[in-house]
Amino acid sequence: MLRHLGVHAPRLAFNFKSSLIHGGRGKTLTTRAFSSSAAVSPPSKAIVYEAHGEPDTVTKLVEVPAVEVKEKDVCVKMLAAPINPSDINRIQGVYPVRPEPPAVGGYEGVGEVHSVGSSVTSLSPGDWVIPSPPSFGTWQTYIVNDEKVWHKIEKGVPMEYAATITVNPLTALLMLEHCVTLNSGDAIVQNGATSMVGQCVIQIAKSRGIHNINIIRDRPGVDEVKERLKNLGADEVFTESELEVKNVKSLLGGIPEPVLGFNCVGGNAASLVLKFLRQGGTMVTYGGMSKKPVSVSTSSFIFKDISLRGFWLQKWLSTDKAEESRGMIDRLLSLVQEGKLKYKMDLAPFEDFNTALDKALGKLGSQPKQVIKF
Amino acid sequence: MLRHLGVHAPRLAFNFKSSLIHGGRGKTLTTRAFSSSAAVSPPSKAIVYEAHGEPDTVTKLVEVPAVEVKEKDVCVKMLAAPINPSDINRIQGVYPVRPEPPAVGGYEGVGEVHSVGSSVTSLSPGDWVIPSPPSFGTWQTYIVNDEKVWHKIEKGVPMEYAATITVNPLTALLMLEHCVTLNSGDAIVQNGATSMVGQCVIQIAKSRGIHNINIIRDRPGVDEVKERLKNLGADEVFTESELEVKNVKSLLGGIPEPVLGFNCVGGNAASLVLKFLRQGGTMVTYGGMSKKPVSVSTSSFIFKDISLRGFWLQKWLSTDKAEESRGMIDRLLSLVQEGKLKYKMDLAPFEDFNTALDKALGKLGSQPKQVIKF
Repeated sequence: MLRHLGVHAPRLAFNFKSSLIHGGRGKTLTTRAFSSSAAVSPPSKAIVYEAHGEPDTVTKLVEVPAVEVKEKDVCVKMLAAPINPSDINRIQGVYPVRPEPPAVGGYEGVGEVHSVGSSVTSLSPGDWVIPSPPSFGTWQTYIVNDEKVWHKIEKGVPMEYAATITVNPLTALLMLEHCVTLNSGDAIVQNGATSMVGQCVIQIAKSRGIHNINIIRDRPGVDEVKERLKNLGADEVFTESELEVKNVKSLLGGIPEPVLGFNCVGGNAASLVLKFLRQGGTMVTYGGMSKKPVSVSTSSFIFKDISLRGFWLQKWLSTDKAEESRGMIDRLLSLVQEGKLKYKMDLAPFEDFNTALDKALGKLGSQPKQVIKF
Repeated sequence: MLRHLGVHAPRLAFNFKSSLIHGGRGKTLTTRAFSSSAAVSPPSKAIVYEAHGEPDTVTKLVEVPAVEVKEKDVCVKMLAAPINPSDINRIQGVYPVRPEPPAVGGYEGVGEVHSVGSSVTSLSPGDWVIPSPPSFGTWQTYIVNDEKVWHKIEKGVPMEYAATITVNPLTALLMLEHCVTLNSGDAIVQNGATSMVGQCVIQIAKSRGIHNINIIRDRPGVDEVKERLKNLGADEVFTESELEVKNVKSLLGGIPEPVLGFNCVGGNAASLVLKFLRQGGTMVTYGGMSKKPVSVSTSSFIFKDISLRGFWLQKWLSTDKAEESRGMIDRLLSLVQEGKLKYKMDLAPFEDFNTALDKALGKLGSQPKQVIKF
């Protein structure tokens, strides 16, 4: 089943064992003859891994020659692309859907159109585009792929937001809109509220008039974290230990019991989400940061009528509903431009990829999302 | 929310603190004057509990005088009624929806119409009827309630099956038909396969061409249990220890991966149901015999796309879909008459109620379902 997921593999602008590369054209440039009039991409640089393993060990910067830009192709000069946890898991080989190495890292990003094939009319050089649905192999300076892979966006958006809009913010929006029907005045509850998805959930919920109750872990500086989340639009923020009371619902005040909960932690933090949920509520699991399972009492299922399910962006993007995602991305980018959707990021020069990677791997303490600027 | 469940409370044919009895008419017969022409029920005997507590301590047999049979009423002489685990939990006071004591025990049963009110046309003396949806207070010899409470059934059915059809078999049928769409050739998996619901699931699945995989606990005489379940229509029966293998699906042979699982045990037995489920499958919890919670990995939710929910008959019967239940009961009784639905029961005389109760409470070792014959 997993192999049927519709993951779009861009052609990679380099010849590194290209016959083996996931989505490669199957020929190396050294054996490939261009007609003299054929349009070609500029040479490119890419972060490649030849085998699965720890990303700081197996990735390397590779120089790759030009590839042909066919009539329906668009050659994009990448501007920025993030290092997401799922990118790391794909390189490690522990993510269920992943390109087989050798492959270029990265899954989302933003670029500027450099040149277009002879029959391309929807895009012109200078346009800003994102691969939508996101595609494997965004950690390179030039990508050539079919016109239909690219979604044109407004140029006014900060490039780090455009580069990161299709994974975390889209996950937050889809979970809020495609799990249960939420109306203004309803409430949701989530753990992992400081995660990027968590921050997006708060802001999107607020923009829709949905109350949000947030659970964070106990740690130093918790008051500052609470303040920051409340400034984003959080109605309530509780640490796990603050919820060690018999009746968590007594803490809700005037907020209605949540109909929907999001869990990206597992273990006790998931049980707390379940405790808040109202009769007939749903909890959606989209991550497992604690690496602990979700534990549910029998009476929660039978007498409280709780439903549990998962959300996985990559699976959703393989469905026929995924066509909606470009419109949703435009909505999210509008929220960014209106200042209603924000989260912390570090823009890191491509030359300093290794440092950005170390930060993304947590080797340098807690860091904001690392976004590579090409 | 629970208090909104549509539980039908029959009027009780006795005057035992009737002003306090759940569903009582609010007057005791000693202060109530019948007109000389009023139809009345015969005097009745009932198993009553005055307070919540252990059923063998708080229940007692009470003699109750006649009550009026109004124009839309039907007076039913009860023939048989089972002692279900939920009856015991209601008396204990641990079931979320329960009559407040003092109350008559019992929730389902079968009876014969004794007399009808002046405007009743759908039923006549001698008809066999069951309260449908089931109603509190079936452990008494005469029940007077509105005509619309009673569902007429064929008289050819063994009374112990008619008395027990609206709880366990209906649960099995509803779970097979209202959770996911199952087609002939599909497969389900369940734990607690020797329970009454489990046995009904096997037989109903078989009658619909649905493969069924069954999990039982390790215990002496397991081969005999397997043989018995296979005779009912089980495709596969495994003990929990037999499923301690890396890939349980290798045991499926030609049976497709189950799309639906039923859990009435919890703990490890629930995890085994989850292991068998196919990508996108659903597990429905309807019991928790082990008193252990259900534990689910994050990847089951995200990458395997498993959904979990509960089923509670009493809740389902409070929905507008419950109208379908009478037709479903007729189908189940037809299966009984065709010999396609069977399970072990003990018919116990009403005078020996205390012994039957002890058996139902497990005080006399493993016993079949106890059905009181009035």
